[in-house]
Amino acid sequence: MMHLKTMPSEYRIRFLPIDRIIPAEEGENLLEIAMKAGVHINASCGGRGVCGKCRVRMAEGSLGSSIHPSISEGDHTMGFRLACASSVTGDAVIEIPLESQVDRSVLRRSTIMSDVDAGAIDGGLLREYGREPLVERHKLDLPRPDLQDNVSDAARITRELAPRLGCEELLLPLKVLRGLGTGLRNADWNVTVDVDVGVRREVTGITKGDREKSHYAIAVDIGTTTIAAQLLVCVGGASEGVILASSSDYNGQISFGEDVISRIMYTRKRGGLKKLQDVVVSTINLLIGELLYEGGIDPADISHIVVAGNTTMMHLFYGVEPKHIMLAPYAPLATAFAPVACSEIGVKTAAHTRLFAIPGVSSYVGGDIVSGVALSGMTESDEVSLFMDIGTNGEIVLGNGQWLLCASCSAGPAFEGGGIEFGMRAAPGAIEKVRVNPVTLEPMILTIGRAKPLGICGSGLIDIVAELFLAGVIDRNGKFSLDKTAARVREGVSGREYVLCFAAETNIERDIVLTEIDLDNIMRTKAAVYAGCKVLLEHGGLAFGDLGMVIIAGGFGHSIDVEKAIAVGLLPELPAERFRFMGNASLGGARIAAISRRFFEKANQVARSMTNIELSNDTQFMDEFMAAMFLPHTDDRAFPETIKALKGGSGFRVPGSGS
Amino acid sequence: MMHLKTMPSEYRIRFLPIDRIIPAEEGENLLEIAMKAGVHINASCGGRGVCGKCRVRMAEGSLGSSIHPSISEGDHTMGFRLACASSVTGDAVIEIPLESQVDRSVLRRSTIMSDVDAGAIDGGLLREYGREPLVERHKLDLPRPDLQDNVSDAARITRELAPRLGCEELLLPLKVLRGLGTGLRNADWNVTVDVDVGVRREVTGITKGDREKSHYAIAVDIGTTTIAAQLLVCVGGASEGVILASSSDYNGQISFGEDVISRIMYTRKRGGLKKLQDVVVSTINLLIGELLYEGGIDPADISHIVVAGNTTMMHLFYGVEPKHIMLAPYAPLATAFAPVACSEIGVKTAAHTRLFAIPGVSSYVGGDIVSGVALSGMTESDEVSLFMDIGTNGEIVLGNGQWLLCASCSAGPAFEGGGIEFGMRAAPGAIEKVRVNPVTLEPMILTIGRAKPLGICGSGLIDIVAELFLAGVIDRNGKFSLDKTAARVREGVSGREYVLCFAAETNIERDIVLTEIDLDNIMRTKAAVYAGCKVLLEHGGLAFGDLGMVIIAGGFGHSIDVEKAIAVGLLPELPAERFRFMGNASLGGARIAAISRRFFEKANQVARSMTNIELSNDTQFMDEFMAAMFLPHTDDRAFPETIKALKGGSGFRVPGSGS
Repeated sequence: MMHLKTMPSEYRIRFLPIDRIIPAEEGENLLEIAMKAGVHINASCGGRGVCGKCRVRMAEGSLGSSIHPSISEGDHTMGFRLACASSVTGDAVIEIPLESQVDRSVLRRSTIMSDVDAGAIDGGLLREYGREPLVERHKLDLPRPDLQDNVSDAARITRELAPRLGCEELLLPLKVLRGLGTGLRNADWNVTVDVDVGVRREVTGITKGDREKSHYAIAVDIGTTTIAAQLLVCVGGASEGVILASSSDYNGQISFGEDVISRIMYTRKRGGLKKLQDVVVSTINLLIGELLYEGGIDPADISHIVVAGNTTMMHLFYGVEPKHIMLAPYAPLATAFAPVACSEIGVKTAAHTRLFAIPGVSSYVGGDIVSGVALSGMTESDEVSLFMDIGTNGEIVLGNGQWLLCASCSAGPAFEGGGIEFGMRAAPGAIEKVRVNPVTLEPMILTIGRAKPLGICGSGLIDIVAELFLAGVIDRNGKFSLDKTAARVREGVSGREYVLCFAAETNIERDIVLTEIDLDNIMRTKAAVYAGCKVLLEHGGLAFGDLGMVIIAGGFGHSIDVEKAIAVGLLPELPAERFRFMGNASLGGARIAAISRRFFEKANQVARSMTNIELSNDTQFMDEFMAAMFLPHTDDRAFPETIKALKGGSGFRVPGSGS
Repeated sequence: MMHLKTMPSEYRIRFLPIDRIIPAEEGENLLEIAMKAGVHINASCGGRGVCGKCRVRMAEGSLGSSIHPSISEGDHTMGFRLACASSVTGDAVIEIPLESQVDRSVLRRSTIMSDVDAGAIDGGLLREYGREPLVERHKLDLPRPDLQDNVSDAARITRELAPRLGCEELLLPLKVLRGLGTGLRNADWNVTVDVDVGVRREVTGITKGDREKSHYAIAVDIGTTTIAAQLLVCVGGASEGVILASSSDYNGQISFGEDVISRIMYTRKRGGLKKLQDVVVSTINLLIGELLYEGGIDPADISHIVVAGNTTMMHLFYGVEPKHIMLAPYAPLATAFAPVACSEIGVKTAAHTRLFAIPGVSSYVGGDIVSGVALSGMTESDEVSLFMDIGTNGEIVLGNGQWLLCASCSAGPAFEGGGIEFGMRAAPGAIEKVRVNPVTLEPMILTIGRAKPLGICGSGLIDIVAELFLAGVIDRNGKFSLDKTAARVREGVSGREYVLCFAAETNIERDIVLTEIDLDNIMRTKAAVYAGCKVLLEHGGLAFGDLGMVIIAGGFGHSIDVEKAIAVGLLPELPAERFRFMGNASLGGARIAAISRRFFEKANQVARSMTNIELSNDTQFMDEFMAAMFLPHTDDRAFPETIKALKGGSGFRVPGSGS
């Protein structure tokens, strides 16, 4: 519990179950108070009163709340309110419902999973690109000045270091010069010098004594939902481990909207951009603190940080205007950011820690994708591969060592829980696996953490749609079939719906259902991804069958069931061995870039060589999209096995179905 | 007069004749109050109570002053006090004596004089090095983004500009990116981009519309005593004029000590370095304001500023620790400073104005000397030249296109008025020319501005010593001869002295005299300079006779009488046509560097190729120094004409002497 010594504000708002008390003024917006308090409440529309996600319960006290269609009269009586539509009128105790809370445990799990893969990939890349970190660290034992040799302190460093670096001149910025005279003498002329060798040779920091071996870096993947960071060992051989510690958390910006568009909308408010920058920097600072603690590392040991993220996240992180990302023709302000000192944007490490970013390509193909593509090895081969990252947007990259095409499919947030009545992110209580008995149509579900169900995450949605489709409950148009009736299929408020869990079985005391509106959203999402891939292939004069490899990156990829994803037509029907899962490839690329200058250069070259295909106004894409708005697809020839299974009743094995 | 609305302090101190009232607390130091008030009082020891220069007169009220040998009992009764040894005890009216005030008119005159020379030198250098300013200015008419071409705003600029600059990548710093999106659209994609092409290709600023032709720079010479600045036209041919306006003022740091050592001493006080930086930046800002006003130029038109100054001035201007400049073995912190935004150190122009510095060589051979040497053309020839800048220190450079040796002679401040009882800087009322009738020994004097005499400046000191020496009043040891008596030669407080002006003729109501202590200081100064030159020549295996040219730079050089300087042994005895005066060569070099990138590179190369000879502990220098402590020198063969004149009674024509 937080104790505040002085509370000049009129009222106190207490949040449960985390038990945090926040002072508030008459009329203040409840969602904004929660944001100030660091209390996470789902709010996918950015507080615009549209999504109805920010349900809270007023347990005590009063609130001024406007009526909202998503709160029934009965719920209202029980105290349920939308936080974004409520304002302070007095003291209040507010309960945050379980489904609205975020839980970090699932993130830790996925980070650990990707760590397991990391060793082998890292070793291969480091053998190829070399372990030469972006910021080199050199111990110097300088000769003391005397009357025969009294060149300036700065020249003394350059004279020693430039030949080692194979250059004539070194940039010593004013910031480094300040305090150098006293610093060198206090250190008795034994110092460790950090040099940025990534873009230009610039001294970034000078520390006392020999710290050449205490040399670490940090890689950060700044996702819209999640931020993951790793503490990296800069010195060592290719076969030695790189990761010393890992940490992750939800991006604090979630409270300001779940998708990038909501975040950009928020920046249009006065001070909004600054606020979002502060929040993401705070999350990163928290993770850095954990990494340093876990690794037993001093901030001065961190010579540099490499970040990767989508283009919107980069704009918000660096604090530059993101507006044009969402306005046609979607020209971002920048896709590359020059190296700066971390302190310049508030990232808390040592004063000398340098910040690099993996460059992106366009407004919707960012540095996270470039980082993943560089890591995937697809550019090392003549064989054409397809790289996919399906999150809020589906970003796809097609190509090989000679050429790269990329696009963003505007897939919509269905697989992240957006636009789905009981959709949620992959967190404890999320239904992640579903099987439906084709005879009884009764479901069998598994939740993350095996907790009482709270909602459905992306992999669960794919499973349920595939199962209901194969069981004939959903027809090829993606609508509930009128032929099939069952206890679980009923008329709901917004058309037909399938009940996955009855209220008593859940942790939210409401039936968890899949509605026809949900189906619409899932259909659009899967159709957009498939159509995007098809368009890229046709740009390259290829078909799905020509693909050597389909690489699936991102957190969503981890839990996806390829068979089910093929059954709904999200993924192409290819042999299972051609699919490869990469986990957090964005973080992986940032990691290798941090400890291998040549890999960072490769990532830059990947960004430069990608040709961005803008799908948003492409007529071919619209045609392909319409063709994919069918289960699995209008073109049966593209999904022969799925069609066979469908015709055979159930060619897919359904474990435990009793059949 | 300044009006202050609130005066919470106890007392008021009024300064005359400028009539400025300053509130003060009991016990505050009078010199510090004067500094706060912006009232200049000479104080060559930095307020340490040593030099006795900060004489003021308490016209009314009270002061707590300690007794000081430089204030006689009679003077004390008349209200004279040392400001640095006085503290506030009540209200007071303080008169600043005329000789302590600074007057800018003489600076303006010398600036105008150097402007006259500038045209020819500039034209020659610009034809050789080209008029390509350090910061280029490019007008871009960018294609608007559309769905077929929606690369980022930053990439849009790079794509257009990089081929023009012949490079692949351009650095766009975060500072420039901020606001770029809105800026480009507000400007309807017509912008002018400033690019630093000096050290690396970096975009320094982007402004709306076409400003390609409104392109100006500023050159600044930061002298210990004087700061001179010029507004420069960047565009045009080699033969077109470069200087649009000129301005100069005393360096505001004068109040904190007249020489570099006093300034460095001041930085040891808490906040002292910051204070001195603020003061010099304020002086420069004042000059910039004047230049912009005079030129009718907008701050946004100034793409860059180039500064040159001695090593101490550069440390103070950039705000880095200068301590080790005055401590053996005299290794400065830096002699080169990387380009920064002017705003980073408080220089007020546009946000995008970039700041460059001409690099120096050592603690006592700074960027001012490098700038002058580059301008002098001595490195364009095989003939060996000697470059001299005699101010508080005598900096000398010997060499040609193949090699350069440099040294600082620790000449002492005699020629700037330091250590001389009635010494003063070259300002109105300073005695600048003196002739002595060899028969009557009566002097004829000329003052700057033909004002009533206030004191003696450097050229006047050389004249009077040469004349008294040739007239036999001063012997070859530099002492008053006991053989020669005259009404003007008398016993003073500190030994013999020669009266140049009796009190009634002066503006200070005291006799202006040359004392034996003054003579000692002048002898040391001239001996140090000559000995330094001799040592450099011997390092090069040369003698004075081998010199093709002796180049005299600096304000002092302007008024010097070569014949007299030879007679006292300050300059070597060479034909008059071998001497060349360059005026403010430091400013000239900064000027050409600003508008010619290749000349700036040349200056950098000059700095790198100079070998610094440390004289302070050199036994050969000590020997040469002792040999030069004679008039003109112990070695008669080096000064045959002077010796002949001496033996002949007066071989030098003394106009108006009646002989």
